Amino acid sequence: MKIENETGADVATLRWIGGTDGYLQMIDQTLLPTEFREIECRTVETVWEAIKKLRVRGAPAIGIAAAYGVILGLQTVAGSDRGRFDQRLKEVSEYLAGSRPTAVNLFWALERLQKLADLSPELSGGEMHQRLLDDALKIEQEDLQMCHKIGEVGARLLAKGDGVLTHCNAGGLATSGGGTALSVFFEAARQGKEIHVYADETRPLLQGARLTTWELMQREIPVTLISDSMAGWVMQEKKIQAVVTGADRIAANGDAANKIGTYSVALLAHAHGIPFYIAAPSSTFDLSLESGNQIPIEERLAEEITNGFGKQTAPEGVDVYNPAFDVTPAKYIKGIITEQGLIQPVTKEEVSRVLSTADA
Amino acid sequence: MKIENETGADVATLRWIGGTDGYLQMIDQTLLPTEFREIECRTVETVWEAIKKLRVRGAPAIGIAAAYGVILGLQTVAGSDRGRFDQRLKEVSEYLAGSRPTAVNLFWALERLQKLADLSPELSGGEMHQRLLDDALKIEQEDLQMCHKIGEVGARLLAKGDGVLTHCNAGGLATSGGGTALSVFFEAARQGKEIHVYADETRPLLQGARLTTWELMQREIPVTLISDSMAGWVMQEKKIQAVVTGADRIAANGDAANKIGTYSVALLAHAHGIPFYIAAPSSTFDLSLESGNQIPIEERLAEEITNGFGKQTAPEGVDVYNPAFDVTPAKYIKGIITEQGLIQPVTKEEVSRVLSTADA
Repeated sequence: MKIENETGADVATLRWIGGTDGYLQMIDQTLLPTEFREIECRTVETVWEAIKKLRVRGAPAIGIAAAYGVILGLQTVAGSDRGRFDQRLKEVSEYLAGSRPTAVNLFWALERLQKLADLSPELSGGEMHQRLLDDALKIEQEDLQMCHKIGEVGARLLAKGDGVLTHCNAGGLATSGGGTALSVFFEAARQGKEIHVYADETRPLLQGARLTTWELMQREIPVTLISDSMAGWVMQEKKIQAVVTGADRIAANGDAANKIGTYSVALLAHAHGIPFYIAAPSSTFDLSLESGNQIPIEERLAEEITNGFGKQTAPEGVDVYNPAFDVTPAKYIKGIITEQGLIQPVTKEEVSRVLSTADA
Repeated sequence: MKIENETGADVATLRWIGGTDGYLQMIDQTLLPTEFREIECRTVETVWEAIKKLRVRGAPAIGIAAAYGVILGLQTVAGSDRGRFDQRLKEVSEYLAGSRPTAVNLFWALERLQKLADLSPELSGGEMHQRLLDDALKIEQEDLQMCHKIGEVGARLLAKGDGVLTHCNAGGLATSGGGTALSVFFEAARQGKEIHVYADETRPLLQGARLTTWELMQREIPVTLISDSMAGWVMQEKKIQAVVTGADRIAANGDAANKIGTYSVALLAHAHGIPFYIAAPSSTFDLSLESGNQIPIEERLAEEITNGFGKQTAPEGVDVYNPAFDVTPAKYIKGIITEQGLIQPVTKEEVSRVLSTADA
């Protein structure tokens, strides 16, 4: 995301400052929402640590950070011969890959740079360093563009004065642009639609309370924080006209895995006749999975629920069930908002049609 | 509630020790679940403080504590003449009434004792002191009986091996017996039905995480803690065969107000074809209200959501909506479990029939 800070200066989730000898600046997301601080990463080690410690989070943002991490790691060998340069590129990539081994975008970005280097062995280290930086900047630009398109496609679905509910954080902090679900809200607000967002706090890790509200407040979009248990009631009180969330993985038939609680929100929206939308880039689709049944659900530590806020809130030794995701069946999803267009109705055929049309 | 402590001794939410010169012992619920401590109230002031600070909570338990508070307050005048005794009774009642001005059972208990004293002006202070203590003990016994009956009526609805979900704490800590919803689970377990309880943590105040799990663990009934956002998903995974919650106020048509989030749980149960039951004493019905629309919803402080556990988890100044209760329409309630019998189907006629039959 890019916003203006208190002094009117432009701040961003992450951005590269300078040329090949430059550095990476990023918002330290672990300090939000009580403290806003940008940190400067001038070595590959600081980028590794930032990814590891979740100072930067969200699939697209992690990929971009890793790409810039490679540029930093190569600064010491930019004047060396290609042998030395390529050797270092390999070392740096392997090192960064270990920062968060389950992040798909991390590997994708590292592989993309490696392939680019392999393509032009005739270039000097310095020339290749510049070419890799250009590509890292391009990865960021492509992400920005994706967010923007999702915003445009999604904003059409909202009407002036709508109350909209979201769950978790599918926001700009996870991307270089406006995010996915939040990008829809940002674009609708920019078009003067005067929407009001209700943000589920999203237990156990409170991404809604900590990050979604913060991003919306930065953009001066009206937002009201509620606890997850209130989602049904605000729908019953007719405060909500649409629901938009992100997704972590979508099967070929449109079944969508997202943060735990999304399934409940989708069912509640269905019961109230409120449209439920998913906003996600086409890269979120895993067409090798026929349906959501094949999506594995990660279970996380009990402590996230029993000791979530620096204080023990449940008896010692209590049994806990803590699935990190749930799967919303396609039949409860009114439409999927992608940068390649709107998938509606959500069927295997329509998923295939929208994704392949844009590829052509 | 009554349970055995680590040394096999009987401990209880509250209990009177000794005769008219005795004292009130209670579990300090503000320390749960990390610390279990019983406190001794030997003056009316300590009872006032315990009610005020929520060391004792739940409508029935507050009423019982207030009645015993009256006995303590009268210990200084038990040997005095009736004029002095009656004067002190009035003072003590007014004092206790100020401890939690919205608690209906508090006033009900104080008025019951006052009426009893008014009935027999011929008795000495000492004789009346004994009669009031007998009645305070009777209030506790009646409550115990009510919990037991609710447990019996409700346990019939559960089958062997059922997974049951509950929201908030409708447990023994709020009563002298086994509570309402939890009493159903206690009785089913006692009958060997081997149920497994899923407890919503119940944001914002976490009564489920702090108290419901603790009570079930004390009785060695299998319980799994989940966050509220997981209720829909555990239903989808077929872990739940029935839902039972308490209620704070029920209208003549069966619409039931209970802790925020209950409405969502009821809708989710409905969507999965799972029966949703309310367990509540007949005193919870307010037959002057035609429907749930007439039940006022208390809104509470933003800090419960933004600063719930000693740590700020949302941006400074964020807008918050924090209704404490919601209303579940009768059509989503499969049955209401009362000490006077099961109300099923939940209609105005059936509510009236079950409640009046038992009165006759």
